[in-house]
Amino acid sequence: MPAEESNRCQVTAKTFVDNKLIEAIDRMSELKVPSRSEDFSEWYNQLVLRAELADYAPVRGCMIVRPYGWALWENIQQALDRRFKATGHVNAAFPLLIPRSFIEKEKSHVAGFSPELAVVTHGGGEELEEPLVIRPTSETIIGHAYSKWIQSYRDLPVLINQWNSVVRWELRTKLFLRTLEFFWQEGHTAHATFEEAETETRQMLDIYTDFAVNDAAIPVIPGRKSPSERFAGADQTYSIEAMMGDGKALQAGTSHNLGQNFAKAFDIRYLDKNGTLQDCWTTSWGLSTRFIGAIIMVHSDDQGLLLPPKLAPQQVVIVPIYKTEEESARVLEAAKRIRAELVASHFRTILDEREGVSPGFKFNDWEMRGIPLRIEIGPKDLTKNTVVLARRDKPGKEGKLSINQDALAGAVGEMLAAIQKSLYDRALAFREAKTLDTENYDDFKSAIESGFAFSFWCGDPDCEQKIKEETKATLRCIPIKQPRRSGSCIKCGKPAGEQAYFAKAY
Amino acid sequence: MPAEESNRCQVTAKTFVDNKLIEAIDRMSELKVPSRSEDFSEWYNQLVLRAELADYAPVRGCMIVRPYGWALWENIQQALDRRFKATGHVNAAFPLLIPRSFIEKEKSHVAGFSPELAVVTHGGGEELEEPLVIRPTSETIIGHAYSKWIQSYRDLPVLINQWNSVVRWELRTKLFLRTLEFFWQEGHTAHATFEEAETETRQMLDIYTDFAVNDAAIPVIPGRKSPSERFAGADQTYSIEAMMGDGKALQAGTSHNLGQNFAKAFDIRYLDKNGTLQDCWTTSWGLSTRFIGAIIMVHSDDQGLLLPPKLAPQQVVIVPIYKTEEESARVLEAAKRIRAELVASHFRTILDEREGVSPGFKFNDWEMRGIPLRIEIGPKDLTKNTVVLARRDKPGKEGKLSINQDALAGAVGEMLAAIQKSLYDRALAFREAKTLDTENYDDFKSAIESGFAFSFWCGDPDCEQKIKEETKATLRCIPIKQPRRSGSCIKCGKPAGEQAYFAKAY
Repeated sequence: MPAEESNRCQVTAKTFVDNKLIEAIDRMSELKVPSRSEDFSEWYNQLVLRAELADYAPVRGCMIVRPYGWALWENIQQALDRRFKATGHVNAAFPLLIPRSFIEKEKSHVAGFSPELAVVTHGGGEELEEPLVIRPTSETIIGHAYSKWIQSYRDLPVLINQWNSVVRWELRTKLFLRTLEFFWQEGHTAHATFEEAETETRQMLDIYTDFAVNDAAIPVIPGRKSPSERFAGADQTYSIEAMMGDGKALQAGTSHNLGQNFAKAFDIRYLDKNGTLQDCWTTSWGLSTRFIGAIIMVHSDDQGLLLPPKLAPQQVVIVPIYKTEEESARVLEAAKRIRAELVASHFRTILDEREGVSPGFKFNDWEMRGIPLRIEIGPKDLTKNTVVLARRDKPGKEGKLSINQDALAGAVGEMLAAIQKSLYDRALAFREAKTLDTENYDDFKSAIESGFAFSFWCGDPDCEQKIKEETKATLRCIPIKQPRRSGSCIKCGKPAGEQAYFAKAY
Repeated sequence: MPAEESNRCQVTAKTFVDNKLIEAIDRMSELKVPSRSEDFSEWYNQLVLRAELADYAPVRGCMIVRPYGWALWENIQQALDRRFKATGHVNAAFPLLIPRSFIEKEKSHVAGFSPELAVVTHGGGEELEEPLVIRPTSETIIGHAYSKWIQSYRDLPVLINQWNSVVRWELRTKLFLRTLEFFWQEGHTAHATFEEAETETRQMLDIYTDFAVNDAAIPVIPGRKSPSERFAGADQTYSIEAMMGDGKALQAGTSHNLGQNFAKAFDIRYLDKNGTLQDCWTTSWGLSTRFIGAIIMVHSDDQGLLLPPKLAPQQVVIVPIYKTEEESARVLEAAKRIRAELVASHFRTILDEREGVSPGFKFNDWEMRGIPLRIEIGPKDLTKNTVVLARRDKPGKEGKLSINQDALAGAVGEMLAAIQKSLYDRALAFREAKTLDTENYDDFKSAIESGFAFSFWCGDPDCEQKIKEETKATLRCIPIKQPRRSGSCIKCGKPAGEQAYFAKAY
């Protein structure tokens, strides 16, 4: 069942019985989760729904981020916000509604965003004199504000971020990856010089890289985009690119050096130390709920989600095992003590006390939701003063370890760190195995069928365009790290100074 | 200059020089901040702008929450979110866009919100089949989701909150107090019984009260609204009401028992333990950036803002005092050491190292921004190993205390607690002095000229309506605590069982 069809929440008059029937059919179809290898796209859709990360909204292409998905996003927010504040940024909130004329002030910007706008034409029962758009991104309205707030070099730099949602009228949508409304942060900074703006742009790319690698356990390639893939209105766009479990690429965060384009369009000027009026240099950078899609598609498996410990809403689930009522009382008492001990040691821990369902059902249920570590405790463990730790990333006996309860907090900490590292190593090995340093076009075409091609490119947009038409692969980025000095363009064979990653992409 | 006129950011073609000229005039007019007693409304507007809490947006009635204002809101968010999570609530995110037909499903709801809607008629360059509205509140779209998610009594209660912004097409706007777009949290819960829903509604009212009293130092009156002042679609609305510095009332948070109204309109049903299909009972509750307006109007004075220590973005500012370069080096070294010590003790502390401005200028600047505690340190202090603490809430020598540096962290903690308490006590004393327990209509009319009238009301909407027409006072709430058992209605004289607060209100 494709995503579009399962979005059955059309606004039609339905009786309650109809609703319940449709839902029952939905749930039956949900039982058939295909394996990753069978149908990666549908495996992804079903995981998102079954793990209750998100649901379809009644408006086409919009999503509801359910509590479990939002708890994951809150952890992502905290991990990024901490880094933003440590580098001197502050948060603010700019309005949702932007005069349509603002979008038209910067030429490339209007070309890029006009086709995607949601337009408010009526307010308070009356037609508006000038239509308003719901922000697709906030460069224009923030540029307008900065032109008021910035007068002199003493006001610079301005380093502001905001957490919000934006609307872009996408035609083909998929939960988290591409939705009409999505949640993100957008940073917007203004500087006195090109160099400062470029340093900021690169700093934020480094912060995204550090977050992806160290918190999300996702190996990413930081690099710059080709001119054709730049943000509408940017002089330079950088991105981090990640390989998904099906070998396709996903752009997981972007950082733009906007040059003086928005400064000129919105009069963002300052008086320098010599009393001369100068245009500012601005940047913008963003990371969105799309990143949740990346976490799912990099780490998860046929059992369900697998969340990196540093971002998982719950890191540890305790499943008590018992048969008799007497056992139940003793086991639950110990399980509660263990939970309290782990919570005190700052591990996000839950205890599954549900009655009427078997431990096996609980194991499957929490595996589906991707909790990295399970603790099993039964009557035998009480006698031996032990518990069993079971890693989500290693199935069966290989991932199990019986440890003494007295050493619990230390062992949990070590095992979560080991899982975090193992997820990263596995994803990196996968990417490396599926990335080919290709020197001829046949190898190139073969490489992008299952992963990335890393190839020299002469810089000619024609070559880039032909590759796209012939193979459906796009130029993902020209990485910062260039292992070789020169070679031949993979398409035209002319001399080329840089290698780029090419791949099919989300 | 009234708020509306100062919103000069009309979208017109202006040259840069024009812009700068207009801004210079603006800044000149900003210099004339009237005193609280002179012009309370304009004093408020100027404080918001000068302390850089918020600014006007280019769209009429919208606001930009600037970094200082947003940092205050982030502290409010944390204080509330902690309480929500401690009582079992989780966060989620529902879409911004709602099919217009949803609003029409609940009769009272559509009557209340239709006139205030912002309507999206075009998306992606095409006219939409069904217009969408930007959420004015989310009962309808959340009700729709709950009807899918809730099947059985095992799924209940559902306890979800979201932090977002909503849009209501207000005609008369004022920064923070009433804006087209405002920021808030909206909690939405579903329960199996009326009793559980009522308990939840009252619990959230208690949480708002606890937050207002203990974190914002604002004494509030928790009570229930009269039927005419209920939320559109609620069976019962509770609110917390606070007295502002001009004696007017402000509704600072609301909690609604929605009965089965939305459950019936959106088919939110569950199978009970006996297998019978039942309608759910739902609640909603919200607190918005309006609360920032309350903090300003309750605590601030002619010197500027005065923020309660528990919510202030910065609790302590260190101002170094020196004349020579040699002094400057020594004083700054000590100031930095003190800052590090206070930050390590978890006090939000900044050091004002600006050069070229006098200590007196810095004192005024931080008083305007409402930082509760100032630390002054100069060469004499170094010799004596002391610093001077200066309380923002007590002007002049009365609020100053010289203490030994070795006792600093303890003294700062005590003084911040004392300021927090003093702000609350002062606001409570002010409210009590301006609240009259009135038994005749003349006293009543006189009371509401400067504050609250606390009077018996027979419950007849006609009496309430006549009072409103004749005095402009509205019934703020019927407080939970009723000191007396019975009396005569202040308007018609008939027997009445409850007293209510009446006041002019924001």
